[in-house]
Amino acid sequence: MNVELITTGSELLLGFTLNTHVNYIARQLARLGLRIERQTAIGDDRAAMRQVIAAALQRAPIVIITGGLGPTSDDVTREVVAELAGRKLLRDESVAESIRERFRKRNRTMPDSIYAQAMVPEGARVLPNHNGTAPGLALSHENVLIIMLPGPPRELHPMFEESVMPLLKKTVPAARALDCRVFHVAGLPESVVEEKVAPVLTGMSDVELGYCARPGEVEVRIITVHADRGDEAERRIRAALGHDMFGAGDVTMEQVVVEQLTAAGKTMATAESCTGGLIAHRITNISGSSVVFRQGWVTYSNEAKTDQLGVPVRVLDQDGAVSEPVARAMAEGARQRSGADVAVAVTGIAGPTGATAEKPVGLVYVAVASSEETVVQRHLLMFDRETFKWFASQTALDMVRRAIRK
Amino acid sequence: MNVELITTGSELLLGFTLNTHVNYIARQLARLGLRIERQTAIGDDRAAMRQVIAAALQRAPIVIITGGLGPTSDDVTREVVAELAGRKLLRDESVAESIRERFRKRNRTMPDSIYAQAMVPEGARVLPNHNGTAPGLALSHENVLIIMLPGPPRELHPMFEESVMPLLKKTVPAARALDCRVFHVAGLPESVVEEKVAPVLTGMSDVELGYCARPGEVEVRIITVHADRGDEAERRIRAALGHDMFGAGDVTMEQVVVEQLTAAGKTMATAESCTGGLIAHRITNISGSSVVFRQGWVTYSNEAKTDQLGVPVRVLDQDGAVSEPVARAMAEGARQRSGADVAVAVTGIAGPTGATAEKPVGLVYVAVASSEETVVQRHLLMFDRETFKWFASQTALDMVRRAIRK
Repeated sequence: MNVELITTGSELLLGFTLNTHVNYIARQLARLGLRIERQTAIGDDRAAMRQVIAAALQRAPIVIITGGLGPTSDDVTREVVAELAGRKLLRDESVAESIRERFRKRNRTMPDSIYAQAMVPEGARVLPNHNGTAPGLALSHENVLIIMLPGPPRELHPMFEESVMPLLKKTVPAARALDCRVFHVAGLPESVVEEKVAPVLTGMSDVELGYCARPGEVEVRIITVHADRGDEAERRIRAALGHDMFGAGDVTMEQVVVEQLTAAGKTMATAESCTGGLIAHRITNISGSSVVFRQGWVTYSNEAKTDQLGVPVRVLDQDGAVSEPVARAMAEGARQRSGADVAVAVTGIAGPTGATAEKPVGLVYVAVASSEETVVQRHLLMFDRETFKWFASQTALDMVRRAIRK
Repeated sequence: MNVELITTGSELLLGFTLNTHVNYIARQLARLGLRIERQTAIGDDRAAMRQVIAAALQRAPIVIITGGLGPTSDDVTREVVAELAGRKLLRDESVAESIRERFRKRNRTMPDSIYAQAMVPEGARVLPNHNGTAPGLALSHENVLIIMLPGPPRELHPMFEESVMPLLKKTVPAARALDCRVFHVAGLPESVVEEKVAPVLTGMSDVELGYCARPGEVEVRIITVHADRGDEAERRIRAALGHDMFGAGDVTMEQVVVEQLTAAGKTMATAESCTGGLIAHRITNISGSSVVFRQGWVTYSNEAKTDQLGVPVRVLDQDGAVSEPVARAMAEGARQRSGADVAVAVTGIAGPTGATAEKPVGLVYVAVASSEETVVQRHLLMFDRETFKWFASQTALDMVRRAIRK
């Protein structure tokens, strides 16, 4: 059973307001086994709204409309829906009273236009709004449940949880929650991830499989209505990906690294040149990281690499700052000077300037020093500056993750 | 002349990925006087995609489709469009070669499936992708311009600016651009900004005025169709805000700081506790920052503050790590040890844990040391951990900006 979502409001199409309703409502609906099949955004335009709502009523058993319930002339949702469903708009005295009460409490003068919000299509149910004057409305029309909600998130969210969810639960009692699982993979391109995962799910046609490539990671997503099939698919995916999968669900690489360090009772340090503090920033975004994160250096200049980390001037002169020996010396220097168990170092050319004949923009060396060994990787990350930094930081964190396990 | 935007990808409807394409594309189009009239999001479903694209082709002269151009089996955009426009899909050898080249440079094995991205509908123009393997495509069909773009923002954005904007400029030469200007203010709350700006624009009813509060800054926005009125409004706004306005247009605080340091021939250093590297990360996001950024420390622990920055153990014991004297000692130590002209230090409690009876979560001290003086500010920033870090870094950068001018 699927849902169509119609988000109205010109601000959503002008580029100034991010449409967060889709994410919020999708996550709520997933708890009931419902999915948004289509989402349409339109401006405050009566003709377009009429057309979009009419088409949705032909397709979906549940139509949710956000916005356009305010008191101003561009708020036309309730009129359009009443017209399409052939209902009169009647003034609801209890809604009018609660609006008056709200203004009284705030000692504000109430414009007459505000009563537009007390108009309710005949037969509709009022969904109370504790955070604004416009109530939500729910209306059954020819086997379609139409739900109208106010646009501001701080009004919509509590209304959704208090009124809409119970209503939907009654409407779709037989629905089964969607089992949606996400797995995060680092160190492999999307096409290789697919080559590993797709074959092991052959024959599981009741499990929907999808991929999403992000800088430095690939997400594998499965959706099914059968939890046992989800378990089986997850078991196979985990086996296929092995240690290249770094986590499942709402988890980030930095969270995994902090958790694994904590569990192992180990500490880390960072020595960053081209990533410029991003690795330390990501680690310290995690609450509790102060226990495992000892110290970070951002050594952009050669002098700082020598003064702060003890990189020999001779090595810098001979191999250049962006080189395997410098990455190694930075990691080992940071480990020794911080007293941390593991230290990671990054040196590279973020661009767009700084390239030489032998060393192109995007070249980066990442080194991880531990008590056993120092591992250095060379990568060529041809991205814009910020994506380059992100990608390099992801590689560095992934190498730390792999080093902790040893 | 209006545009329909169709965003594809199941992740957009499952609640895991925020749809940022609408905002980005709307802002680009506004520069040409174009507006998005309708935006529809659908999953990776061939039938739904076919229906939505076919309907859009009947309504709009320009249809932009994002996503579904990747190499995996759920990427069907180019097939659906070719089918609707009655074109064959032909392999474009120059695209195939540039994909091969990309893999060669990265020393990666190339799966055969990747060649799906070299398939181009007959008569379509290829929009090069410098940040991924899937090129964009543009196709004219029965007076409709169809533009297909890859889903990842870091691929879509440069492609939009390099290829789509010039194409649209040729298609809609007569459109009149909206004059939209943004001014960035730091150090003042939104209400104070409004009190300063609103009165000076009284009587300019042809200039639309708006505000947007973001962590650590307020944006003032004006929109008009008359460039001369935009100039007049801008002159008044600049006079009203003075030095609290740190920039106009697409500019960030870190960019302004790097530019002003460069212009003044000065250098800076950072000593970060609770911001954990974020200030250094923001500075090093700016190309050319290596000239002005000497060195950064992330000193989370007390030992690191003493070892690396020379903060006296006595001061740490007496006043605690989150205190005015420690912030001051960190900034002065960083300035002295790095040899930079200006050093900024931050120490605070990001939370959610770490508070004491006298020191609540959100307490932060920011110090800036220069040749003339050391200035310390105390703030109480009651936000979640990441917003706290951002806000503190913004305050620190703003203090550096103000210190450079002296």
